[in-house]
Amino acid sequence: SDKLVLFSGPCAAESLELCIEVGEQVKSICQKLDIAYVFKASFDKANRTSVNSYRGQGLEKGLKILETVKSKLNVPVVTDIHESYQAAEVATVADVLQIPAFLCRQTDLLIAAANTGKMVKVKRGQFMAPEDMQYAVSKVKDSGNPNVCLTERGVSFGYHNLVVDMRALPTMRQYAPVVFDVTHSVQQPGGQGGTSGGQRQFAPFLARAASAVGVDGFFIESHPNPSKALSDGPNMIPLNEMEGFLKMLKEVWTLGRQYVI
Amino acid sequence: SDKLVLFSGPCAAESLELCIEVGEQVKSICQKLDIAYVFKASFDKANRTSVNSYRGQGLEKGLKILETVKSKLNVPVVTDIHESYQAAEVATVADVLQIPAFLCRQTDLLIAAANTGKMVKVKRGQFMAPEDMQYAVSKVKDSGNPNVCLTERGVSFGYHNLVVDMRALPTMRQYAPVVFDVTHSVQQPGGQGGTSGGQRQFAPFLARAASAVGVDGFFIESHPNPSKALSDGPNMIPLNEMEGFLKMLKEVWTLGRQYVI
Amino acid sequence: SDKLVLFSGPCAAESLELCIEVGEQVKSICQKLDIAYVFKASFDKANRTSVNSYRGQGLEKGLKILETVKSKLNVPVVTDIHESYQAAEVATVADVLQIPAFLCRQTDLLIAAANTGKMVKVKRGQFMAPEDMQYAVSKVKDSGNPNVCLTERGVSFGYHNLVVDMRALPTMRQYAPVVFDVTHSVQQPGGQGGTSGGQRQFAPFLARAASAVGVDGFFIESHPNPSKALSDGPNMIPLNEMEGFLKMLKEVWTLGRQYVI
Amino acid sequence: SDKLVLFSGPCAAESLELCIEVGEQVKSICQKLDIAYVFKASFDKANRTSVNSYRGQGLEKGLKILETVKSKLNVPVVTDIHESYQAAEVATVADVLQIPAFLCRQTDLLIAAANTGKMVKVKRGQFMAPEDMQYAVSKVKDSGNPNVCLTERGVSFGYHNLVVDMRALPTMRQYAPVVFDVTHSVQQPGGQGGTSGGQRQFAPFLARAASAVGVDGFFIESHPNPSKALSDGPNMIPLNEMEGFLKMLKEVWTLGRQYVI
Repeated sequence: SDKLVLFSGPCAAESLELCIEVGEQVKSICQKLDIAYVFKASFDKANRTSVNSYRGQGLEKGLKILETVKSKLNVPVVTDIHESYQAAEVATVADVLQIPAFLCRQTDLLIAAANTGKMVKVKRGQFMAPEDMQYAVSKVKDSGNPNVCLTERGVSFGYHNLVVDMRALPTMRQYAPVVFDVTHSVQQPGGQGGTSGGQRQFAPFLARAASAVGVDGFFIESHPNPSKALSDGPNMIPLNEMEGFLKMLKEVWTLGRQYVI
Repeated sequence: SDKLVLFSGPCAAESLELCIEVGEQVKSICQKLDIAYVFKASFDKANRTSVNSYRGQGLEKGLKILETVKSKLNVPVVTDIHESYQAAEVATVADVLQIPAFLCRQTDLLIAAANTGKMVKVKRGQFMAPEDMQYAVSKVKDSGNPNVCLTERGVSFGYHNLVVDMRALPTMRQYAPVVFDVTHSVQQPGGQGGTSGGQRQFAPFLARAASAVGVDGFFIESHPNPSKALSDGPNMIPLNEMEGFLKMLKEVWTLGRQYVI
Repeated sequence: SDKLVLFSGPCAAESLELCIEVGEQVKSICQKLDIAYVFKASFDKANRTSVNSYRGQGLEKGLKILETVKSKLNVPVVTDIHESYQAAEVATVADVLQIPAFLCRQTDLLIAAANTGKMVKVKRGQFMAPEDMQYAVSKVKDSGNPNVCLTERGVSFGYHNLVVDMRALPTMRQYAPVVFDVTHSVQQPGGQGGTSGGQRQFAPFLARAASAVGVDGFFIESHPNPSKALSDGPNMIPLNEMEGFLKMLKEVWTLGRQYVI
Repeated sequence: SDKLVLFSGPCAAESLELCIEVGEQVKSICQKLDIAYVFKASFDKANRTSVNSYRGQGLEKGLKILETVKSKLNVPVVTDIHESYQAAEVATVADVLQIPAFLCRQTDLLIAAANTGKMVKVKRGQFMAPEDMQYAVSKVKDSGNPNVCLTERGVSFGYHNLVVDMRALPTMRQYAPVVFDVTHSVQQPGGQGGTSGGQRQFAPFLARAASAVGVDGFFIESHPNPSKALSDGPNMIPLNEMEGFLKMLKEVWTLGRQYVI
């Protein structure tokens, strides 16, 4: 598409109220800035570092929340799936199915997602070379679904650290549209002893870099009070900073895309 | 246990004949060398780089092969599971359920495996710090299953390459017994354009290193003709070299464990 | 300074003619684009992968070339030094002394450079955390010379590969102005068997990213015919593409710096 | 040589007394264990993280200490050089010239060391692929000096961390004898904010691994009281633990070399 796309919401569908609050504000910012908006929330945090971490509302309640947000705000929604049996049910609500980075090589999951006919958004594994993501794209397309996009969120760099390799963006755009995940790119996996830490202070720098390099969309988690978020708090953008953040991104992105062939 | 344990077989359960051929010979070598033997084969290669790669016999046929090997050779068997729904069914045959490295943080999969009561063997993710594997162990133990072991198979080191950090072995042994996976430690992920390459020539060096450091077991894939294997050929040990290989490992391991507290 | 600074020239001072040709054209482009220009050439390639690679003109001839370029084109010049005894002599001609990345922790070299009173430009080692570059800055400043800047050129990422960690730019700007080295950031160390390779195709992407993140200057090697350059050919920008390249950088940089505190 | 070689001493030549104390005890242990002993101490710590760290006695005093140790204990000595002008003078005392890891690509330094005719011991750079060390070997041999050996001390793995890639040992032994540096392999560069940290607890594990893989010698720094050492304290082996440590290494090494072609 010709328009910048934003996937955004609280990390987890903690409650309907939270989802509506975040979705409403982000939607209104996106309208002002001419950005296509897709609401994001997870019904299940299936791969937390520790078993004691918050898991989410679960499939049923989570989908109900997504459905309400979708109809109330009139926006498309994205959520992740973790096992192939979830694809069909989630697709009754979600417009985009997201494949988590750890799972980007699970053939059955990719095919199940593809078979729903919905857009499949595959995150690059922290262990994958950018050019190897073409095989994830093929797994979706060869299942007869051309609606696939990729997402960059950093690659393993020693322990408890990720680095964003900006070369990955043009490499992966050869295969499919690419979304830059601002939030998880500044994550520090397991860096807080049993939970992941984050470096929110670097988010605007990496987001500007990706904008200038050239991407098709952004993924940004936001919360009215990140320090109280039930997951990924340390890397989220506070809701009241989203407008300034998106304005900046849109401006750099608009300039950057002049140079992208 | 006090005995060295070997998990070994062809990578995929390509056919019953192949499984019996490999299992019989490795079992007989293990008896000579006083090594506890667990037969390994996969019914499904669920995360191949490319969708065109060989997938395996599938759950039903694969389990039947495993069952036959188990009863004919009278050895315990291990196989991997990829989605939580497979755990219970696979546990009707397998004595050990293996969690693939990419999936080591999938809480549902770990819990489903734990709930079978069988031994759960979790491979360290290529993206995980060794100390963070304690949370995978907890996910199993907190489900009421104390039978859990970990496996080292290398960590992401740039693109298309893994490095074995020998520090990971003593670190992870604080949480559970540790198996060293000789075969996948010399894998080069995606390194052959659509399939993974391997550096079999380094297998004896890394295996000796791990033996001297101190581990509880080894995982080694073997095939009568690795160049014809339907997966992981470039990193397998040819079946006719297994006896020499295991003799070497056992000797170094026996010396090494004198120094392990 | 308030102006964007460009350090540029052929990698090695191959000949006076080449230096004048490159310097003249780049200077004229910089005047058009309001960029401060510093001519760069090396008199000695002291750390080539192989002993058979081109070394350069040597100290005496090299300095004479730099001196001629400086007076003919009326531009400041930068060149690298490799051992502390070279600092004083090189400083009779050079306005900026560059410390190569491998040598960024050599205390004597940094102090010798500092003692000349000239600007000292220290490249981040491929093995250094960004925050540790503050100690290189201190080594210069504590010698009584406040004129120091840092340069980013990528960090070791597995073998034969570097990755640019964009977080390093704001981190290092806390200590000193930061230059982004477009040319060496796309180098592949030793990647061609005895010589280093390069990925020139990624140069515009990384350069735009750094511009948007925020830097004080750029370092770009250029040559009328990179494939004939005696060193670093695979990563250089062809001279006839420099104007378009710099125009792009200036534009993104101008926008980016609005957001840099 | 057929004998295991040990390079050992305090990191820095802090005082003659310390050098004699360490050298005497290590020599006597080596005699018992049939290990060839080379005394090591540095006259200058030329690349400390911070300018405020201890630098050493300097060239003149340092060489005098080395000379006294050499004649009093009747052992060969090794020390590092950092700039090419030091080679000839240091060679009047030292039997082996060590090239620090950061400097392993400095052609002039390698050639100056080679020209002394003494054994040149080159440490693998933290940024070098093992196979690229063949060029360092060539730089020495092509200068007419066949006496060259390589040293493994870990490779950059993210920030503030090194990993020992055991594959590097057999790879580098194709070009020259290889020494495993136990002490610096467990260093954490810059990991303590301005000084490097270390993980002494992993030293015996890595040392056993390298012994089993196959090396020609070891490099181990030791101090009667590591916590009071003026450099590298966190990674040194206490002097009173050296006998047990070396006995272990010798035993594993003796077994390991049976398997090394």
